[in-house]
Amino acid sequence: MHVSNKPIKVGLLGLGTVGTGVVRIVDMHQEDLSGQVGSPIVIEKISVKDRDKARSIPIDPSRLTDDPWEVIHDPEIDVIVEVMGGVEQTRTYILEALARGKHIVTANKDLMALYGTEILAKAQEMKCDVFYEASVAGGIPIIRTLIEGFSSDRITKIMGIVNGTTNYMLTKMSKEGVSYEDVLTEAQQLGYAESDPTSDVEGLDAARKMTILGTLGFRTNVELADVSVKGISGVSQADIAYARNLGYVIKLLGIADREDDAISISVQPTMVKASHPIASVNGVFNAVYVHGEAVGETMFYGAGAGEMPTATSVVADLVSVIKNLRLGVNGLKHIAPHKPKRLKNDAEISFKNFILLHVDDKAGVLARITQIFTEYEVSLASVVQQPNELNPNAEIVIVTHKASKESIDKVLRRFNELEVVRRVVSVYRVEG
Amino acid sequence: MHVSNKPIKVGLLGLGTVGTGVVRIVDMHQEDLSGQVGSPIVIEKISVKDRDKARSIPIDPSRLTDDPWEVIHDPEIDVIVEVMGGVEQTRTYILEALARGKHIVTANKDLMALYGTEILAKAQEMKCDVFYEASVAGGIPIIRTLIEGFSSDRITKIMGIVNGTTNYMLTKMSKEGVSYEDVLTEAQQLGYAESDPTSDVEGLDAARKMTILGTLGFRTNVELADVSVKGISGVSQADIAYARNLGYVIKLLGIADREDDAISISVQPTMVKASHPIASVNGVFNAVYVHGEAVGETMFYGAGAGEMPTATSVVADLVSVIKNLRLGVNGLKHIAPHKPKRLKNDAEISFKNFILLHVDDKAGVLARITQIFTEYEVSLASVVQQPNELNPNAEIVIVTHKASKESIDKVLRRFNELEVVRRVVSVYRVEG
Repeated sequence: MHVSNKPIKVGLLGLGTVGTGVVRIVDMHQEDLSGQVGSPIVIEKISVKDRDKARSIPIDPSRLTDDPWEVIHDPEIDVIVEVMGGVEQTRTYILEALARGKHIVTANKDLMALYGTEILAKAQEMKCDVFYEASVAGGIPIIRTLIEGFSSDRITKIMGIVNGTTNYMLTKMSKEGVSYEDVLTEAQQLGYAESDPTSDVEGLDAARKMTILGTLGFRTNVELADVSVKGISGVSQADIAYARNLGYVIKLLGIADREDDAISISVQPTMVKASHPIASVNGVFNAVYVHGEAVGETMFYGAGAGEMPTATSVVADLVSVIKNLRLGVNGLKHIAPHKPKRLKNDAEISFKNFILLHVDDKAGVLARITQIFTEYEVSLASVVQQPNELNPNAEIVIVTHKASKESIDKVLRRFNELEVVRRVVSVYRVEG
Repeated sequence: MHVSNKPIKVGLLGLGTVGTGVVRIVDMHQEDLSGQVGSPIVIEKISVKDRDKARSIPIDPSRLTDDPWEVIHDPEIDVIVEVMGGVEQTRTYILEALARGKHIVTANKDLMALYGTEILAKAQEMKCDVFYEASVAGGIPIIRTLIEGFSSDRITKIMGIVNGTTNYMLTKMSKEGVSYEDVLTEAQQLGYAESDPTSDVEGLDAARKMTILGTLGFRTNVELADVSVKGISGVSQADIAYARNLGYVIKLLGIADREDDAISISVQPTMVKASHPIASVNGVFNAVYVHGEAVGETMFYGAGAGEMPTATSVVADLVSVIKNLRLGVNGLKHIAPHKPKRLKNDAEISFKNFILLHVDDKAGVLARITQIFTEYEVSLASVVQQPNELNPNAEIVIVTHKASKESIDKVLRRFNELEVVRRVVSVYRVEG
């Protein structure tokens, strides 16, 4: 109890969607929050881009500044809540705030994915807290769950729908037959997707979140470069139909898995068994499925974005920081060791595959195809050859058993060289 | 950092299913656990019913005792892990352990539902931790989530499938058409249900868990007597079929809800819309759906029982206790205020209802029935009258809009008095 019950002063960097939610929650729930932490919580200063912009909440203009440094340099401020986004400049703000002994709550996945290690090291040096629950899966308290709830277990697999935009798009494509192009336009009109949607649809946003989840789940330093990434821009209505016929749905999944002490992390459109709990997560919702050696299967579901869900996580972190502040234990909670990291090589990464080929419609082709799988010791769960109504080729739909990425890559290279194979149309990872 | 890195000594009360799991996890993950807490964790003494019983894990016999007091009185022991079950005698052990300054981790929902308030008060007085994550929903870290993850929000509704036995039974009845009696026998043979299954099938076990969830979610002292309870022994194959035709599944749900500051908590078989996330939670799995004003819809899914999932939660609590021990902050974390409790009366409790009536098959009956609903201002979502193939009566299937419990009770009383109503066959709460 190092701090009396004088007000805790918070500096807010950014007053966009999430920042507005934070102010709203701190206002609305002041009594309940200060009851929990033992002191009033005051949002002392807020840095914004435009001080004159109209706001949806009443804000005392004297608290606004257009200079983030003014917030960071204010000696009265104990905690910085960073919801302004951005990476390089924001990193400078955060590191300087830590150097001044201020605790940090951030919703910034890009920052944590790229500079998390540096920021957490600085925090440890300064005995400061850095909490970032809102950086992954908005309102779902998945970071707490991985750090504390499963502290006793060994996580073997994390599968996440951690990008609401692409899940909205795939859900629409799947349920309503809308094309990729049309649903993207619609998502942009609804404000779910940016005018430049690359970061969402090419899987980069999900990859950043998987960097954070992998680091926490496997207690090792996963970096963005460790994540292999493929987006959803190649997903067609035909692929969705094939998936449906086989009992699967296509989801953009972040998948982190571990065997012994080797890990792999990837983001890709994945065919998921329709009966798997994560398969029924639709629309902008997020979910993180976690498998632990002891706990078995678990899943955590909720809103992945949006003003109030994300602000819920930010303010919950703020409560944790202030509780620690009152107990004098900031920056001391995470004694967790960082294990050495070993990434699986392509021979060790293994999963089931869906492969769709267009081939010449003549005798012996199917035998030729299956023989190539045999050469690379890939065993098959099912192979169906059927005439393709749209063109003179036949098509072959293959689902493999688990096979190494190395073998599948070799098989696909062979197919590309084979004259009877007109085209490798689609390849998907298969889960569940 | 009040404690050096000398071993932390733990006393275990009970070595049944969960106790065995605890020993297993502490053994298997010793390196990782001691890395997290900064000290080795030693299970110093274990109290058991029968010292000579064969065990599935290697146990040094000198650590076993048949006297729980020997564990509690051992001055070397810092933390007591209670996984022996029982209520009255166990309460005595726990209170005495707290009086001696020992911290408590327990998986005992009965104890916490009945004596939680007393035990937590004693813990606060002695500056001791009492953690009980495993008491609700086994491996799902729902207690942490309610206390910390949603500290910033106002929870408005909690719906839980918190009894795996009855969920297994209802799933079997629903998916395979097995009768209640047959599935109960099977559940008993599989060890999912006790030889006296009353506590599970009559909803008492779920009610105890809802007492704990309601207390945490609404930050007020919910007592077992506040929970209205109805079990699944009256659920028939016919009811399941009616539910299916209307797009619902029947689940035993614990439901805690709040409007303004009035709350209600109940456990009952409920018809849940098939598209609701909780509707697809099957078998022995548990799930807790939480709705918060800010965060919106969330759901937490996992194994509700079993040796290793439950032990995961127990050992995660143990890690939290030991971290606090090393920081010298045990018993200080929960400054959360307890709000005054106000239970909704029957006029305030409101939900949708499914009602199945057998009536005389003659003109004017339907009008008579609907007129009674109108009298009590209950509006109807659907009414279908159809001949019943099995007997000379007609049947009427009604789904109401939200209506007060008081009104529905009055309507049902009128039906019971009405000559044309042969029988009120089934009444279910409807959700989603």
